[in-house]
Amino acid sequence: MLSKAYTKYIQSLHHKKFRDADNVFIAEGSKVVMDLLRSGIFSCQQILGMQHWLQENEPAIRKQYAGPLQVVEGFELEKVSALSTPNQVLAVFKKSTTTSIQAKGKIILALDTIQDPGNLGTIIRIADWFGIQAIICSENCTDMYNPKVVQSTMGSLGRVAVTYTNLPAWLQKNSNIKIYAAALAGKNISQLKGVTEAIIVIGNESKGISYEVMELCTEKITIPKTGEAESLNAAVAAGIILSHIGQ
Amino acid sequence: MLSKAYTKYIQSLHHKKFRDADNVFIAEGSKVVMDLLRSGIFSCQQILGMQHWLQENEPAIRKQYAGPLQVVEGFELEKVSALSTPNQVLAVFKKSTTTSIQAKGKIILALDTIQDPGNLGTIIRIADWFGIQAIICSENCTDMYNPKVVQSTMGSLGRVAVTYTNLPAWLQKNSNIKIYAAALAGKNISQLKGVTEAIIVIGNESKGISYEVMELCTEKITIPKTGEAESLNAAVAAGIILSHIGQ
Repeated sequence: MLSKAYTKYIQSLHHKKFRDADNVFIAEGSKVVMDLLRSGIFSCQQILGMQHWLQENEPAIRKQYAGPLQVVEGFELEKVSALSTPNQVLAVFKKSTTTSIQAKGKIILALDTIQDPGNLGTIIRIADWFGIQAIICSENCTDMYNPKVVQSTMGSLGRVAVTYTNLPAWLQKNSNIKIYAAALAGKNISQLKGVTEAIIVIGNESKGISYEVMELCTEKITIPKTGEAESLNAAVAAGIILSHIGQ
Repeated sequence: MLSKAYTKYIQSLHHKKFRDADNVFIAEGSKVVMDLLRSGIFSCQQILGMQHWLQENEPAIRKQYAGPLQVVEGFELEKVSALSTPNQVLAVFKKSTTTSIQAKGKIILALDTIQDPGNLGTIIRIADWFGIQAIICSENCTDMYNPKVVQSTMGSLGRVAVTYTNLPAWLQKNSNIKIYAAALAGKNISQLKGVTEAIIVIGNESKGISYEVMELCTEKITIPKTGEAESLNAAVAAGIILSHIGQ
């Protein structure tokens, strides 16, 4: 049985203020929770699971985690869940500590003011698909520990290092590396083929890349358009660009 | 002033059952409403707008539409809106009548059981970007007139013909055309380069392409993976595949 106080505590973690205060976040669903446990990046604090789920998964869980396992009923999970359809398990993890990201010899994504949690989560998942190890977020990007971000990464959060920083300052420090700006006009993305070291900047969903960041980019690249849509979704654009680097 | 009855009517259109009964749907926000008006595909029935918005846009509206314009207050728009942040205008449009789609000489997207409205809307927007004129949806795809679909198309709904049909039967009728299945294993998508006639099948978000549809596909294609994510979002995959055809 979940106490009232603990129920309220988990609910509070739906909000950034309380996640920041305690330096923790929640993750839900079998795949996401197990992927985060296995990653070893985030220290697990608590697992609340339906009885049958815990029974089935305890052996795998115990390889990674020795802490408390709490059995919950469906109605209790519903109360604490951030999902519209709660999914068997919710876990509380400690956030990871930010490490400095070395851009040398790598493809790195830099996100300028990505505001939609679904977009950020999807971009992290895309990065994981293409083997991108690091994402640099401007400080005003949406919080990577927002439950909607965590869910839409589908477990990739444990395999891609996401760091928040002053983006212009970070780009300036890495000005020896080519910085490509995803834009509505520029060189065809097919020219990225075979590139092995680059920073790819993706801008805000409606405003694109800010002036300050654009000034620091080496080159504008674009996804050729043959139809009439004004723009592409930011996550879709990130996926398309990364898919052309490896080709 | 909106009457109680009309407020309830618009709210009822958030649900498929009532949209189907009246053969209409709602669209919101300046860009989406104006793009749908300009497309000429959907006959507009009613426009509810904030006073300043109507004043500013009346000349452009009147080029396309001679029907009623109703001034609404913010709190009224909030009541009828399907958006979390209502956006100045809501319009009621008649659905378009389905026409049969000719696949000969074109690139066509076929969607097998796409369930998430955001994904369907984003795929319609992507199709519009790449100049794809038609999307065939299996009958159990989410409704293209769901307000979330309409919003996430960002106005592209008027520029891409979306049709619901028995997908296996339709594919069988078009078996003289190459049918590519987006899959987790198959030929590299780079082989699509320069293709000018094809049907590209995108499967369900979690289950992929159904057995019955897969049987009818000529070839499996895949987006090469160098990382560890299990899958890509369906809309992202559609975007990546289409971007490689034109390259």
